[in-house]
Amino acid sequence: IAKEVAKLLEMKAQLGEDEGKHKFVLKTPKGTRDYGPKQMAIRERAFNAIISCFKRHGAEVIDTPVFELKETLTGKYGEDSKLIYDLKDQGGELLSLRYDLTVPFARYLAMNKITNIKRYHIAKVYRRDNPAMTRGRYREFYQCDFDIAGQFDPMIPDAECLKIVHEILSDLQLGDFVIKVNDRRILDGMFAVCGVPDSKFRTICSSVDKLDKVPWEEVRSEMVGEKGLSPEAADRIGEYVRLHGGLDLIERLLQDPKLSQNKLAKEGLGDMKLLFEYLTLFGIAGKISFDLSLARGLDYYTGVIFEAVLLHQENEHVEEPVSVGSVAGGGRYDGLVGMFDPKGRKVPCVGVSIGIERIFSILEQRLEASEEKIRTTETQVLVASAQKKLLEERLKLISELWDAGIKAEMLYKKNPKLLNQLQYCEDTGIPLVAIVGEQELKDGVVKLRIVATREEVNVRRESLVEEIRIRTSQC
Amino acid sequence: IAKEVAKLLEMKAQLGEDEGKHKFVLKTPKGTRDYGPKQMAIRERAFNAIISCFKRHGAEVIDTPVFELKETLTGKYGEDSKLIYDLKDQGGELLSLRYDLTVPFARYLAMNKITNIKRYHIAKVYRRDNPAMTRGRYREFYQCDFDIAGQFDPMIPDAECLKIVHEILSDLQLGDFVIKVNDRRILDGMFAVCGVPDSKFRTICSSVDKLDKVPWEEVRSEMVGEKGLSPEAADRIGEYVRLHGGLDLIERLLQDPKLSQNKLAKEGLGDMKLLFEYLTLFGIAGKISFDLSLARGLDYYTGVIFEAVLLHQENEHVEEPVSVGSVAGGGRYDGLVGMFDPKGRKVPCVGVSIGIERIFSILEQRLEASEEKIRTTETQVLVASAQKKLLEERLKLISELWDAGIKAEMLYKKNPKLLNQLQYCEDTGIPLVAIVGEQELKDGVVKLRIVATREEVNVRRESLVEEIRIRTSQC
Repeated sequence: IAKEVAKLLEMKAQLGEDEGKHKFVLKTPKGTRDYGPKQMAIRERAFNAIISCFKRHGAEVIDTPVFELKETLTGKYGEDSKLIYDLKDQGGELLSLRYDLTVPFARYLAMNKITNIKRYHIAKVYRRDNPAMTRGRYREFYQCDFDIAGQFDPMIPDAECLKIVHEILSDLQLGDFVIKVNDRRILDGMFAVCGVPDSKFRTICSSVDKLDKVPWEEVRSEMVGEKGLSPEAADRIGEYVRLHGGLDLIERLLQDPKLSQNKLAKEGLGDMKLLFEYLTLFGIAGKISFDLSLARGLDYYTGVIFEAVLLHQENEHVEEPVSVGSVAGGGRYDGLVGMFDPKGRKVPCVGVSIGIERIFSILEQRLEASEEKIRTTETQVLVASAQKKLLEERLKLISELWDAGIKAEMLYKKNPKLLNQLQYCEDTGIPLVAIVGEQELKDGVVKLRIVATREEVNVRRESLVEEIRIRTSQC
Repeated sequence: IAKEVAKLLEMKAQLGEDEGKHKFVLKTPKGTRDYGPKQMAIRERAFNAIISCFKRHGAEVIDTPVFELKETLTGKYGEDSKLIYDLKDQGGELLSLRYDLTVPFARYLAMNKITNIKRYHIAKVYRRDNPAMTRGRYREFYQCDFDIAGQFDPMIPDAECLKIVHEILSDLQLGDFVIKVNDRRILDGMFAVCGVPDSKFRTICSSVDKLDKVPWEEVRSEMVGEKGLSPEAADRIGEYVRLHGGLDLIERLLQDPKLSQNKLAKEGLGDMKLLFEYLTLFGIAGKISFDLSLARGLDYYTGVIFEAVLLHQENEHVEEPVSVGSVAGGGRYDGLVGMFDPKGRKVPCVGVSIGIERIFSILEQRLEASEEKIRTTETQVLVASAQKKLLEERLKLISELWDAGIKAEMLYKKNPKLLNQLQYCEDTGIPLVAIVGEQELKDGVVKLRIVATREEVNVRRESLVEEIRIRTSQC
């Protein structure tokens, strides 16, 4: 990485010097990045783990356009709407880049009158946010979404979403984590019994949402100062949002003299209890924390909400693990599809979104630390020659190999040196070299060299494909 | 499809009725489409064939952002620049959606000072063109690009690009095809000897490019009428562009009294001869047609250009096969990276782009005609119950299966009917049902039902995972 940084600095310096001569700056747009072959290899590993999990749970896959009609996105994101990228009006429809995959999914369901589907969708979304790229926060980033739409018995699909988060985070071995859960109905009930006026529910909810980043005192002063909440109401909220726990806490709150009188809160707590029962059957209740401070920013949630955070033990002497940020989140949004349906018909939905960029950052850092050499191609064999004037023979042989499904490369030179050809294999991790020479051609054989051991064997030309398959098979 | 159309019409009618009540139209932007699970299954088949081929040829993979700085795209696409999507200026940089994957690739090479790479890139590109969606022409569409960058001996990478097109089109079994090749140097030499002024080379090239869609007479009148070319020069061009053939034609043109005097044309013809020699070694020369009417629209090509078209035998009595359009194209662009490099350093490149949307259309139509039932999930087993009150047992069992890597689903109901559970398997193609019941629980077994044969066997719970693996393994 030091080498890469040096390269970049050098390039930056050059760009600075040449600015006068060259009109354009050589860069990607702010908040975006290229993925080179190494990064792509890491990315594909992570995707494979995620896609395997989604398929294991029987999900179908869909795709939608990168942009939507601007009005499709309007009124879905609350205060965050200002972060939506609009396209320039070049005549025709007004368009915006998608901000998440949930709203396009709801539009898709309403448009195709689908009332029942379990699907995943992996695609890039766009937010004109302040990028913090070293921590994996970008303006263009992937989301990996799994959602269950349909009218079902309570909390069964919701529990499956949490199981999925648990499986993926365990599978990727990202270290210890906790999945915080709450319910919008519990939050709204709590706001009601604390004396928050109905009209302030959403904006006070936004304030609570900041509790994972700023201390209670700041959130309280925002509620009272900026948002005009009474200090007493704020303090009552303060009592609740410090609570987190498991089934015991749910039971306690079901007995809470104020909350238990509120219909919404009671419903939410009842379902939360059911959820914990299912999570216990799934064997994952230990990683779940019912947390009254979890609020989630988006407007469209109506029931269970959740967020997975990685815990980072700085060192063994630190008592409280430090959160390094959210890597997955989601919840129930029973009203969103109805916003699109001409007759307002509702399709209940619950889903989870895996925030893959932060996971990439972690995997990337880990790979660098481990000094594991990662291959960026799958080439099985290099077709090489020991003498000059054998280009035609190399072309004939490599063509045979390709047609037999063997992954093969050759150097694009008429007369490459054998040493350079062998060095290329060392550099790129190609395990075998198929060497053609005058004598081999006469004998009807190819010399197969095993790069790791430097062993060389003559293989009859007609057996070469089979021999390469055997020597490079993984199973 | 008739059912789908009926659905759409019904929806359209409803939308019409409700227009007053609902502000927004329920649609994707013009020229774009959603991919449902069925379409995605087809798309993934095609992608797999293409990616396998790219990997077989030792390519690495990269990814770039969906938008670039506007100035990165400026001056690369000639007359087509008007089709670029710009983003709205919301403060900050001016951005445009990528128009192809070639210009971002060149920007990537220059920015990272890479002089040598073989990479593929599969991603969506954007063109504000007139969509013709039934023929697979969209405003948002995938390109599958394979490019070789670096200073190599002539025509070896170029020949590999053509081999790749041949492999992919053969593998996808799209029917008969031909790959037309030409060279920008031959075209420019031809224009020179026909008396086209230097300043008109590119615009006359654009006219020639239309020959696959409109007859010569129209192209001629555009050249003479709109573009002010002398009728004599146009007629001389007309003589050349009707020529197509193989090595014989190359030899003849190398003897052509006028062309053979032109340095550029001679170079191009010499390389074309070499290319055909390599293609003969690859065994694919029979599908290649050296065609002087092939021009390609884009500005950045500097050498070999090519385009693959499918031939469609309307019926056996038609003598001349009918072209159903281009499905792949590409060429050499040795100057593009230099346009980005601060010091103008060139990196020679050649590449191919597979036009996947048209291929999708064909595969989709074929699948419908074949009545093959395509599965959209990979679920191996449905966890079901024969009696009521077994939700908890189903949850426990499915969790065990997921944790063992088995692809499993269950109905999200507390007490589903067995018949409904079996019907779900029929509908979605799930091959096995694991049934829990009171008796099975007592006996420590699970009843495994094979959907196709209706056979049922009791399997000890600890052997269930292994039994499911054996019964659903493909190899």
